[in-house]
Amino acid sequence: MSRFLTHLECSKTGETYDAGTLHNVSEAGYPLFARYDLESIKNSVDKSVFKERNPIMWRYRELLPVNDMKYCISLGEGFTPLRKVDTLGGKLGISNLFIKDESLNPTGSFKARGISAAISAALERGAREFAMPSAGNAAGALAAYAADAGVSAHVFMPKDTPLAFKLECEYYGAEMELIDGLITDCGQIIQKRKEKEGWYEISTLKEPYRLEGKKTMGFELAEQFEWELPDVVIYPTGGGTGLIGMWKAFDEMEKLGWIGSKRPRMVSVQTEGCAPIVKAFNNNMKTAEPWQNASTVVSGLRVPSAIGDFLILEALYESEGTAVAVSDEELIDYSKVMAAHTGIFPAPEGGATLAALMKLKEKQWIKDDEKIVLFNTGSGFKYMEALNRNTKTVNAAKA
Amino acid sequence: MSRFLTHLECSKTGETYDAGTLHNVSEAGYPLFARYDLESIKNSVDKSVFKERNPIMWRYRELLPVNDMKYCISLGEGFTPLRKVDTLGGKLGISNLFIKDESLNPTGSFKARGISAAISAALERGAREFAMPSAGNAAGALAAYAADAGVSAHVFMPKDTPLAFKLECEYYGAEMELIDGLITDCGQIIQKRKEKEGWYEISTLKEPYRLEGKKTMGFELAEQFEWELPDVVIYPTGGGTGLIGMWKAFDEMEKLGWIGSKRPRMVSVQTEGCAPIVKAFNNNMKTAEPWQNASTVVSGLRVPSAIGDFLILEALYESEGTAVAVSDEELIDYSKVMAAHTGIFPAPEGGATLAALMKLKEKQWIKDDEKIVLFNTGSGFKYMEALNRNTKTVNAAKA
Repeated sequence: MSRFLTHLECSKTGETYDAGTLHNVSEAGYPLFARYDLESIKNSVDKSVFKERNPIMWRYRELLPVNDMKYCISLGEGFTPLRKVDTLGGKLGISNLFIKDESLNPTGSFKARGISAAISAALERGAREFAMPSAGNAAGALAAYAADAGVSAHVFMPKDTPLAFKLECEYYGAEMELIDGLITDCGQIIQKRKEKEGWYEISTLKEPYRLEGKKTMGFELAEQFEWELPDVVIYPTGGGTGLIGMWKAFDEMEKLGWIGSKRPRMVSVQTEGCAPIVKAFNNNMKTAEPWQNASTVVSGLRVPSAIGDFLILEALYESEGTAVAVSDEELIDYSKVMAAHTGIFPAPEGGATLAALMKLKEKQWIKDDEKIVLFNTGSGFKYMEALNRNTKTVNAAKA
Repeated sequence: MSRFLTHLECSKTGETYDAGTLHNVSEAGYPLFARYDLESIKNSVDKSVFKERNPIMWRYRELLPVNDMKYCISLGEGFTPLRKVDTLGGKLGISNLFIKDESLNPTGSFKARGISAAISAALERGAREFAMPSAGNAAGALAAYAADAGVSAHVFMPKDTPLAFKLECEYYGAEMELIDGLITDCGQIIQKRKEKEGWYEISTLKEPYRLEGKKTMGFELAEQFEWELPDVVIYPTGGGTGLIGMWKAFDEMEKLGWIGSKRPRMVSVQTEGCAPIVKAFNNNMKTAEPWQNASTVVSGLRVPSAIGDFLILEALYESEGTAVAVSDEELIDYSKVMAAHTGIFPAPEGGATLAALMKLKEKQWIKDDEKIVLFNTGSGFKYMEALNRNTKTVNAAKA
């Protein structure tokens, strides 16, 4: 383990676990959080050191769960551009609009961060065979990192997952099974088989370290904004690991003295066809009910039930944020608007954040001069089936 | 113009031109090279400064053709990972194998570099409407950078260009025409129409600055190898701008005292269905004859005639390099091998470099402990039609 990582802690009960061995969820069935000796980090690392390190997420290695860097599997993930998009902002009348462009990660999505952290940490703790259910991007990332590590990946995806994800997994040499169901069904199959097969499951939030990789998005927001966080973060929310991770990162950075107490208002974006977090937020609930008959063209947002629901909702409430549902049509249209005025060909999840921004602007929930960050979590090239649907409406949809 | 850019120079005749106005080729019809006051740069910039700058190609801005950075259109291009790929190297018995992974550029290819430099320089010199023939990736890049700049892009591509390129151009809002012919036919259409339409043509090597963007790959090789160049660079060669650009960068860096006189042996890789440079090299020619009936699944290598042919060949001869043709089948097979042991899902052009490496190893043209760099110039996600052909042979093709 990292020389600063002290233990794991149940995110619900606070019960602690040894960080030096492999874990999935806590005994109570909740996600485990990695905890560090922040006081020692504070005394030994100044935040000015990062800009001299490689532009990847491992520049924050003291706050990541690997000790011996020979176990670190890195394909160049993280430190993605935080772009001020003035041409788009000008069209919309928003003067401080930014996009964190996660499509420039290896395997074309933000999933690379979580997998890089989780597979490296698991290798250091002895795992050699990995299994995961996925809506697409996470499977591609696991298969890629396993390929470079020279270990086995078993991925389970819904059979209607876009071609790009299947093809990359095949190229990376993963064992792939396509399931007639949703990501939650894929997860249940792994549950049944993993013990007998000797697989270590790295479903998100069902092991402690994908969260640690994703939290680096929060460190980067701080570093790239010169250690003062923006006003609003608009984030497409499937499993929500990135949002939970950033919220954890903000807390760690404040304890380290890197940032003050200011937090962005966190916004979860989902689709109308699968919006469990939005429904729970609107009803002021602490957890979300599983969504029935989830249906959306956006595979990354087709997550009917997230194990970290209570953590997502906590971050929304504590930050005075909100949750917004957009339709498939809106998010495809706004993917086009984003592309046509920024040069980013976004994943539809990225387009969804712009659609949500428009709703929030209309409601005057945001002010026009606030610093707003949209997360484009992946590349449109992996979603050609979804994005090729309505291309005739490009011009009509332009802002 | 950059405060250090002094003039343009015909790459064949040495005739000079004003760098402050828009140009295409020289009066003699050859590419123009940007020339800088290297002595002044040497006196005012130490190479240790770069590591403190943003991890994009504009960190070398003193050697790029923009003065007022308000004209700089950047989507986060450059400073891509140079990965030591030990799992793949171990399979092949090559101990110092590296891949420069250009797929992590905006728009998923190395073309972003050239377009970022060319469009920024042209905007500073007054151009507002752009036209280009392309086999795919360059069109996508032009369309993206024009979208962010808020200016017009007119792209002409062969009608059988893969879907990803067409779709991104449509999303970016470019004017797109699909031509029943090759990239050279597209170029002729632009020639006929550009004056009347008021387009500035930014075909590669037919304006001076795409080369300047591409040369940053050479700067990065030097910086990432701690200012000592590798032994061999294996580069997929269509128009050859990157190879010519790196060769120019090496010369500039030596004059600046950043590197010594050591040069890598430069290797051009083409496909058997379109190998004009390989044929010319094997016949010890100074220029290449146009290739008849060019045919390959790799759109970026289907360039029957390159305006910079003599510059490519010069670099190959001067570096004691070579040129290698591989078949479409070999390059798809080795794309799989690269993916399965590195986690990079390469463009087929990237796979071609590995296929070429295998031939060079067999001939003992390379030694097993030499530092060898393969260029993966783009992302496989943009070539799904080509890469989806023979997926059944994945296992058989593994090294």
